Amino acid sequence: MLESKITHLTVCDVRFPTSLEQHGSDAMHTDPDYSVAYVVLETDSDAALKGYGLTFTVGRGTEIVVCAVKALSTLVVGKTLKEIIGDFRGFYRLLSSDGQMRWVGPEKGVIQLATAAILNAVWDLWARVEGKPLWKLLVDMDPAKLISCIDFRYITDALTEQEALGEVIKDCLEQMLKEGYPAYTTSCAWLGYTDQQLTQLCSEALAQGWTKFKVKVGADLQDDIRRCSLIRKLIGPNNTLMIDANQRWDVNEAITWVTKLAEFHPLWIEEPTCPDDVLGHASISKALAPLGIGVATGEHHKIIVK
Amino acid sequence: MLESKITHLTVCDVRFPTSLEQHGSDAMHTDPDYSVAYVVLETDSDAALKGYGLTFTVGRGTEIVVCAVKALSTLVVGKTLKEIIGDFRGFYRLLSSDGQMRWVGPEKGVIQLATAAILNAVWDLWARVEGKPLWKLLVDMDPAKLISCIDFRYITDALTEQEALGEVIKDCLEQMLKEGYPAYTTSCAWLGYTDQQLTQLCSEALAQGWTKFKVKVGADLQDDIRRCSLIRKLIGPNNTLMIDANQRWDVNEAITWVTKLAEFHPLWIEEPTCPDDVLGHASISKALAPLGIGVATGEHHKIIVK
Repeated sequence: MLESKITHLTVCDVRFPTSLEQHGSDAMHTDPDYSVAYVVLETDSDAALKGYGLTFTVGRGTEIVVCAVKALSTLVVGKTLKEIIGDFRGFYRLLSSDGQMRWVGPEKGVIQLATAAILNAVWDLWARVEGKPLWKLLVDMDPAKLISCIDFRYITDALTEQEALGEVIKDCLEQMLKEGYPAYTTSCAWLGYTDQQLTQLCSEALAQGWTKFKVKVGADLQDDIRRCSLIRKLIGPNNTLMIDANQRWDVNEAITWVTKLAEFHPLWIEEPTCPDDVLGHASISKALAPLGIGVATGEHHKIIVK
Repeated sequence: MLESKITHLTVCDVRFPTSLEQHGSDAMHTDPDYSVAYVVLETDSDAALKGYGLTFTVGRGTEIVVCAVKALSTLVVGKTLKEIIGDFRGFYRLLSSDGQMRWVGPEKGVIQLATAAILNAVWDLWARVEGKPLWKLLVDMDPAKLISCIDFRYITDALTEQEALGEVIKDCLEQMLKEGYPAYTTSCAWLGYTDQQLTQLCSEALAQGWTKFKVKVGADLQDDIRRCSLIRKLIGPNNTLMIDANQRWDVNEAITWVTKLAEFHPLWIEEPTCPDDVLGHASISKALAPLGIGVATGEHHKIIVK
């Protein structure tokens, strides 16, 4: 079925009114309507297999991502799954490097989101063809093959050390099979939730076995101190706490603010400032290191700066 | 007329088939159709004044920018010019920080291009209200006012040194009034032009008084050596040559390639590699400094790395 051709790509603008109850709220996105650009790939396979993919948005602007998916669709329709997965990295570059469209990207913002929705749908289609959930497709994959699906063009060290990177990923996969896929929950502590909601949701998450908790911060320092203190009491000293400011601060503000939350021992502060300020992130990281607090960047390129 | 309200925003997708004759071609954009998302702001002023603005695209994908302009238009229509220019920085932040739409930006790619088209139209409207060309509006402006129109949020040093920056800009403006607005020409040396075209266009530009010339490079080293040699002979040792690779290389490739073009004494290499690779740009800059060649980044944030 790998020979099946992708015959149609459709994309929908799906919105959920989550802002009504402050689900998903943070210091930067105070009224988010968690929404998606939802992609369906249809094929000419006998089983009429389809691939489903999405990227997450927060409401207004989803129509721009939908427009971008439509613009990219001509690069996808007509290809077989075999062609795509035979050179996944090349397929990524095709989407991100069209000689005219790359001008409105490249590899950032709306174009990145549209590309992600399509790639997610391709991965989903591949997993369905193999008759497995996606995670199993990934863990069954040879490390070298997995690495070959990722575009490391601009990471010279990674390219020359692919072999070593393969080993690291292999170790991770083995650990995952043994211990399960590690995850944290953000759902207890959106910024717009009351202390009562927070207490109830956090207690429920603990009862369900969660051990890692993320709290939205950055709008009001006294609120943050109260909420972090409450959660730390609820989860105890051995569970993990992370905090996330969604780009709310400038560099010095981030350092001062997070220093005042250090007593609650957060593992990291996520998106303390503008995502484009690389040197700013480095300064914050350096200042917080003595407090044992790391810095994490945002969704588009999630890395931990040590 | 500053009290005039913006009553309508319209936006058109305008395309020009420049790829037919390779105008605008470079190592990354081999078939560009230089195009624009074209914005018109209508007002309720007695004189029915309008503001016109655009951002440049290279063909496919312009419809996505148009879609983004439409999405942003609700933040513009209904405002008076006075409100906008009274807090130009705040207006920029409004466009780039809408609580939902910023997720698909912020301040990059399609959203940045759409914001720019709208801001250009506002500047144009402002100049028309003042009855001056835009450059004159700018040079007549108090440096502090000019600075206040720009968003320096993430540039801490600039914010604390606004005064000094005002002085720098004042000096620039005085020089401009004395010597005219400095510019270079790229129109002689698009990558897809023949040596004959290049010779003819370059000779014409020299005759018109141009002193600074930019050449597209990066597709084929031997071609680049031949073309740079030809242009340097045409313009002589005292005119300025710049080269532009439009993000075509990785870091080491950039250093090797440009080193081989050093004998033609380019002032800078523009966009040697991925625009997001800040440290890569720094490495290239460091390696080329002993050759007297600078590094310039691209259109969205043009800075010279010394």
